[in-house]
Amino acid sequence: MKRHIYLEDIPLDEAQAVLRAALEAADLWRPLGSETISVAEANGRFTATAVFAKLSAPHYHASAMDGYALRAQDTVGASETNPLTLNLIDSETPPDSVARPIQAVNTGHPLPSWANAVVMIEHTEPVTLPNGTAGIQIRAALPPWHHVRPMGEDMVATELVLPANHKLRPVDLGALAGSGHATVTVYRQPRVAIIPTGSELVAAEFAVASGIASGQIIEYNSIVLAAQVANWGGLPTRWPIVKDEFAAIQTAVREAAQTHDLVLLNAGSSAGSEDYTAHVVQSLGQLLVHGVAVRPGHPVIIGLLEIGDWRLEIGDWAISNPQSPASTTPHPIPIIGVPGYPVSAALTGEIFIEPLLARWQGRLPYEPPTIQAKLTRKINSHTGDDDFVRVAVGKVGDNIMTTPISRGAGVITSLVRADGIVRIPRFSEGADAGATVTVHLYRTPREIEQTIVAIGSHDLTLDVLAQFLAEKTAVFRLMSANVGSLGGLVALRRGECHLAGSHLLDPETGVYNDSYIRRYLPGQPVAVVTLVGREQGWIVPLGNPKGLAGWEDAANPDVQLVNRQRGAGTRVLLDYELGRRGIDPAQVRGYGREEYTHLAVAAAVSSGVADAGLGIQAAARALNLGFVPLAHEQYELVIPLAHYESEQLKPLLDLLHDGGMRTAVSALPGYDVTIMGQVRIL
Amino acid sequence: MKRHIYLEDIPLDEAQAVLRAALEAADLWRPLGSETISVAEANGRFTATAVFAKLSAPHYHASAMDGYALRAQDTVGASETNPLTLNLIDSETPPDSVARPIQAVNTGHPLPSWANAVVMIEHTEPVTLPNGTAGIQIRAALPPWHHVRPMGEDMVATELVLPANHKLRPVDLGALAGSGHATVTVYRQPRVAIIPTGSELVAAEFAVASGIASGQIIEYNSIVLAAQVANWGGLPTRWPIVKDEFAAIQTAVREAAQTHDLVLLNAGSSAGSEDYTAHVVQSLGQLLVHGVAVRPGHPVIIGLLEIGDWRLEIGDWAISNPQSPASTTPHPIPIIGVPGYPVSAALTGEIFIEPLLARWQGRLPYEPPTIQAKLTRKINSHTGDDDFVRVAVGKVGDNIMTTPISRGAGVITSLVRADGIVRIPRFSEGADAGATVTVHLYRTPREIEQTIVAIGSHDLTLDVLAQFLAEKTAVFRLMSANVGSLGGLVALRRGECHLAGSHLLDPETGVYNDSYIRRYLPGQPVAVVTLVGREQGWIVPLGNPKGLAGWEDAANPDVQLVNRQRGAGTRVLLDYELGRRGIDPAQVRGYGREEYTHLAVAAAVSSGVADAGLGIQAAARALNLGFVPLAHEQYELVIPLAHYESEQLKPLLDLLHDGGMRTAVSALPGYDVTIMGQVRIL
Repeated sequence: MKRHIYLEDIPLDEAQAVLRAALEAADLWRPLGSETISVAEANGRFTATAVFAKLSAPHYHASAMDGYALRAQDTVGASETNPLTLNLIDSETPPDSVARPIQAVNTGHPLPSWANAVVMIEHTEPVTLPNGTAGIQIRAALPPWHHVRPMGEDMVATELVLPANHKLRPVDLGALAGSGHATVTVYRQPRVAIIPTGSELVAAEFAVASGIASGQIIEYNSIVLAAQVANWGGLPTRWPIVKDEFAAIQTAVREAAQTHDLVLLNAGSSAGSEDYTAHVVQSLGQLLVHGVAVRPGHPVIIGLLEIGDWRLEIGDWAISNPQSPASTTPHPIPIIGVPGYPVSAALTGEIFIEPLLARWQGRLPYEPPTIQAKLTRKINSHTGDDDFVRVAVGKVGDNIMTTPISRGAGVITSLVRADGIVRIPRFSEGADAGATVTVHLYRTPREIEQTIVAIGSHDLTLDVLAQFLAEKTAVFRLMSANVGSLGGLVALRRGECHLAGSHLLDPETGVYNDSYIRRYLPGQPVAVVTLVGREQGWIVPLGNPKGLAGWEDAANPDVQLVNRQRGAGTRVLLDYELGRRGIDPAQVRGYGREEYTHLAVAAAVSSGVADAGLGIQAAARALNLGFVPLAHEQYELVIPLAHYESEQLKPLLDLLHDGGMRTAVSALPGYDVTIMGQVRIL
Repeated sequence: MKRHIYLEDIPLDEAQAVLRAALEAADLWRPLGSETISVAEANGRFTATAVFAKLSAPHYHASAMDGYALRAQDTVGASETNPLTLNLIDSETPPDSVARPIQAVNTGHPLPSWANAVVMIEHTEPVTLPNGTAGIQIRAALPPWHHVRPMGEDMVATELVLPANHKLRPVDLGALAGSGHATVTVYRQPRVAIIPTGSELVAAEFAVASGIASGQIIEYNSIVLAAQVANWGGLPTRWPIVKDEFAAIQTAVREAAQTHDLVLLNAGSSAGSEDYTAHVVQSLGQLLVHGVAVRPGHPVIIGLLEIGDWRLEIGDWAISNPQSPASTTPHPIPIIGVPGYPVSAALTGEIFIEPLLARWQGRLPYEPPTIQAKLTRKINSHTGDDDFVRVAVGKVGDNIMTTPISRGAGVITSLVRADGIVRIPRFSEGADAGATVTVHLYRTPREIEQTIVAIGSHDLTLDVLAQFLAEKTAVFRLMSANVGSLGGLVALRRGECHLAGSHLLDPETGVYNDSYIRRYLPGQPVAVVTLVGREQGWIVPLGNPKGLAGWEDAANPDVQLVNRQRGAGTRVLLDYELGRRGIDPAQVRGYGREEYTHLAVAAAVSSGVADAGLGIQAAARALNLGFVPLAHEQYELVIPLAHYESEQLKPLLDLLHDGGMRTAVSALPGYDVTIMGQVRIL
């Protein structure tokens, strides 16, 4: 088993500088080349050269209105009280044959050579002259060139129409065509090969149909990278999955380099036993960087392939013909070893690949919009690493609040849910709660303002609400973070969210939430809106093999439990019931194994890690597990009155009385919607 | 000749309401339908339904690191000073056969069922045990589940992955694939037919090759509209140009409606003699709106086609089978008559078509970023019209300044050059100079900040500078507005621009610019940078048929001149020379015909409107005209010192010493670059 350990782990800016210097040395830090394409197909492309008008537009003096062409000097003296009649002629009649000629023209028509102004049809009256011929009466004099578009009004031949490096928008295509261009020379799009490697990978397209075994991983980084490359103006090629074999990877890289400008080799860049990326790069060229001090994303590899004899012709690049003695200079092709973790892979795209594709297309690297936000939680960062922290952002009242999404690099949903990134530079140890930080946004500031932020206990009903909200309004978004009921009340107190899901039983009164709200939100008027009644109980394997029946089973030495985190309503319920029965947590096997959601508890039972866990029936049903009901509880939304009465929350609160929404929730097992939408003001 | 006049001209919001109401009545104000496509091809599309996880991710407990799987309880007691050795086994060895087993795992590999933690390879040392077998030494105890990604950490089966109406980004595709989806159901893209009509039109693709005659117009609105539709998520079809014949247009519309969701009929919506749009709509359905009180864009037509017997199957829509008696209900298809003027056409796209395509795809209408800016010039607006005023925007010092681009609806370059739109609502008469207005931006605020604003006299060198600046920096943009030399100095005084091109001869001293600068910019320190020396003279037809020789020819009764506008340096020069010779402007034929640029003067001569005009040699050469040199003058850039010394202007000033730039300017006829880049501080 061949294994090695990172030799280098250099700072991000150094890695970027190394890549740039290597590309500059290879004369590759520039637009890759150009191609001439039809104007009609050039939308979104970048001009490779300045474009000058071939034709003037208009290329003749044109009528700017539907009306009549005339000589301005013939209209002198016309007024409301003194209408003047002109003699209507057609294009066949010589204008000199009549006094004061006037001729019908439409918008865009060339002005007759004898005329120098146009009167709008609305400002004329047809009349019959005494001699029986047709005339046109006008009631105002016109200056010369009135309602005439003189030749070259829009563009004069030879004039600059568009500079180089300009992104072509729809109106630009119009200006190009209008100035006599049927084609335009634009930078060609970089070709990017994306090679997924890993014997454990199964293509996403086949994973569902053929099933997936333990140890197999659905390969989707190539889909993400390809979509990124396409969004950034490149032409991606997704390679078939290559097994973890040195020769196979080497062959794939060599083939890809023949017809692409950049090779992305996914995974295999870590120090695992099957990590061949660095060796493949070394065997085919030069390894420049092995490991970058950026989180997430450490195992990034950067190299330059030199595959002379294998080169074919690409665009305007030189050919390296193996038969020709002149072909001894190999053409370098950059290669980036992209880490396997999906979050690392996507961020490697943003950090390394996007700026390179930008440079190759003569455009600026993308800079996301930024927003200043107040940090709700401390960010710890390792000095020496550039840290890219995924965050959620919400506007609560007048404050923009941001919360780090503290999940591993393997959790793609953390990027899906992220509203942006906070960059912690390598000389910093992080940022404190309450600090104002710059968030590089994935969404527009407007989307942030239309986000309803729920922090607290999670319930499946919130997912249903989020779904209906998105479908019904297409405007508002419900973002929910699961921190448990107590955590939600704390977040409300800090002004971090609009509402908190909560199901905290007061052992003294048997009433849900109220006493906790008074304790955690003293003096703050809140509305408590009942969302659902629901069953709590033991989530167990199908058939309940260990025969759990009641709360007492928590202390059964034969039963391995999985617990919820401190502050979760379900944990409060368990502790309350254990206390009532005098069961010491030390007697409960697995009491210390904490999960953060009902579904995570169900997943633990499903995987066999635990025999049971306290949770809701819907979570058991979702994973096809058994359920032993123990208690009925109320799950409620705690909403500060100011938010409760705001326009922003109205569509969400309206949904609680929506028939479709109630039907969808009723369909969840163990849910009772009869109390949905009941409100008490505290 | 059949002609008619608008019957209706209703306000914009009413027109939008009429369209919406008609589509609601026809059950068309909703997403058009959905289709199921490969996740890998769904980038940028909108989810039609909420998506729930089919699989958990990971779907097994997975190692989160390259390292070794072990039992956390076996590591108790290990420390820096007290290393602990575990027995290396492979997957074949039963773990119960050895004490403290440890097994190599790579990132993503399933955790062996007996293990519950992973130690990173970096934190281990291989050792050989006394009995000769392999061992691994560790120097820290591990908690259970350390470096393990538990099943469902990312997504638990049945969990909401994405809501409906969500625009799919690259990472979303990863989440879909990772949760077991090979396909996703998205809204289908609206099919939009774009039919250009007009007997005078020539397709842009053929105009260049085949030449273009007077009265012919290059058709490019269909290119602009198609690119807009594509940018907004639709699938455009550009129809061949249809002649101005009722039957031909009717046939094209009927055919287009069979296979499209929306028909755009371009031009033919005005009151000209060949305007059939309204009649065609009436003949095939219902005319809803004829004329909208919006500028530019008045002649917008909105209708609903009802083409029952002609319907084929489209997506999930009903089929109207002519053979079937059940097919009597015609399916309505909206049609929009788009005005012919290119600016009107493009704005009709933004105002009417984009929101409709948005609704049909379940997304929000696009809202451009906005910026507050100070108006440099009064905007007059007709009460009753919603006015969409194209504006230029620049950040000069600390102020965002915006200037209306007052050009006709036929001038596509006014949209190309526009940085945004100021909307003047129909109840307003406009906005005063100095007022703060909201600009709906076509560029990012960042691009605005990187724009160098030149207002003043125009010289071709500015185009060359703009081109080199774009090519060399890819960052900075030079935007120049032509208002003449004096206009530029006034703009500088108002703080509207960074620099002004000027060539104002002081008749007293024979020195260029200085006395004017002192008069117009009293007390303000400025740098005057010489750009070029250049020849001024008579621009005449090739061969100089009227034999112009000197300034005296201005008074030649046989010579029809074209003049520059008041305040232009060239005008100042002409007036100076006329004055010196005692020539009264009244003696000069065409003295009152003013053009705003050298090229426009040349265009007037080229078109035969004038026999001669004063201008620079390069303009004569550009349009293949003759030139009679009269004077050598200096064209200079006047730059307030603060801007001159700013980072923003540095790349532009550096270009004055760039060899390539100087060579390009030298190539222009009549230009002298020896004095380029000379600076005096006033």
